[in-house]
Amino acid sequence: MRDLYYEQLDAIVDDMVTLTGSVRRAVAAATAALLNADAPLAEQVIDGDKVIDETIEGIEERALLLLATQQPVATDLRQLVATLRMLTDLERMGDLSVHVAKVSRLRTPEVAVPTNLQPTIMAMASVADQMIHAASRIVANRDLVAAEKLEDTDDEMDKLRKELFRVLLSDSWSHGVEPAIDLALLGRYYERIGDHAVSMARRVVYLVTGEVPTQD
Amino acid sequence: MRDLYYEQLDAIVDDMVTLTGSVRRAVAAATAALLNADAPLAEQVIDGDKVIDETIEGIEERALLLLATQQPVATDLRQLVATLRMLTDLERMGDLSVHVAKVSRLRTPEVAVPTNLQPTIMAMASVADQMIHAASRIVANRDLVAAEKLEDTDDEMDKLRKELFRVLLSDSWSHGVEPAIDLALLGRYYERIGDHAVSMARRVVYLVTGEVPTQD
Repeated sequence: MRDLYYEQLDAIVDDMVTLTGSVRRAVAAATAALLNADAPLAEQVIDGDKVIDETIEGIEERALLLLATQQPVATDLRQLVATLRMLTDLERMGDLSVHVAKVSRLRTPEVAVPTNLQPTIMAMASVADQMIHAASRIVANRDLVAAEKLEDTDDEMDKLRKELFRVLLSDSWSHGVEPAIDLALLGRYYERIGDHAVSMARRVVYLVTGEVPTQD
Repeated sequence: MRDLYYEQLDAIVDDMVTLTGSVRRAVAAATAALLNADAPLAEQVIDGDKVIDETIEGIEERALLLLATQQPVATDLRQLVATLRMLTDLERMGDLSVHVAKVSRLRTPEVAVPTNLQPTIMAMASVADQMIHAASRIVANRDLVAAEKLEDTDDEMDKLRKELFRVLLSDSWSHGVEPAIDLALLGRYYERIGDHAVSMARRVVYLVTGEVPTQD
């Protein structure tokens, strides 16, 4: 009975790790749609979020069924509850990639990001991608060293957001208010994607050590 | 034994409802700090979020302990899991009020919101407050009619956000890029507070009816 429990729990965690792959692809596709004003790709991200949500609901259902039928206690219970919360993080990352895709769709056929800020947005997307990838490995391997490193990557995201705002607020900004708002919101979306990756990693640290990592 | 279970579950739900009161006060105080450039009040909101977080952690601990010791199944299990998720919604609302307070702090002694947009921000804060209040009553009374009404209130929030952006993007906008970005982000913060209230209500609807309300 217990063996079956761990088998099912492992399958749930595996499926969650696979799902982070879908979320990474959604973020990457949304960014590509944004930087190339690719409306069909933006639509694909927006529609594809339903699939991510359905997958999450399916995993949640299985986790709840496992809770109900196996009634785990102590660490096993915490693991399942942490899994449910990490699924919420992944759902939000999917939603945030939809937000990015919607900015792209709103501005097509123009590119929402002025040329001089495209490298910054690409860097933010790349850092977000690294962070989701790291979170998935941390979940899969309970890798605490990687969890600590993820906090450093988050500092990088913070630097990029500051850089973005420095440009938006400089005297040489010549693109007006609308692109500035788009970019401030885009910066926030990528930052939030990173925050959710950090949140996933912190839940793993808590599971392993029983200590909540210092929140900012 | 079962009686004790429901007693403890009721106490958890009661404490969560009380907590929504703290969250409402945080949103209201952050808005007052914002509109009056009241730095000490902004600091109070920022510091006070720790208390909200600690309260949430305390309630979570009790919910997990109840899960572990009483091992509820079916509806009772779903109720506890829904409670854990609603606590996450409340935590995010607290964080979002901190974001509002930080915009206020960043611009003090100036008021971050130009006079002509103060009524819009006040209206958004007021709608957010109504939505949190409604969510707490929906949680306390499992009131499905109120849950349906909450979706209408959310449409109001949507209209206010559109109105805000119309002003930010109009030719007559004379305040430059920085206040425009502040206001776009502020609009998003209030909107997200409302989203989390809707999310809480939808979890109650799901608990009562077994049906997930249509997501937008």
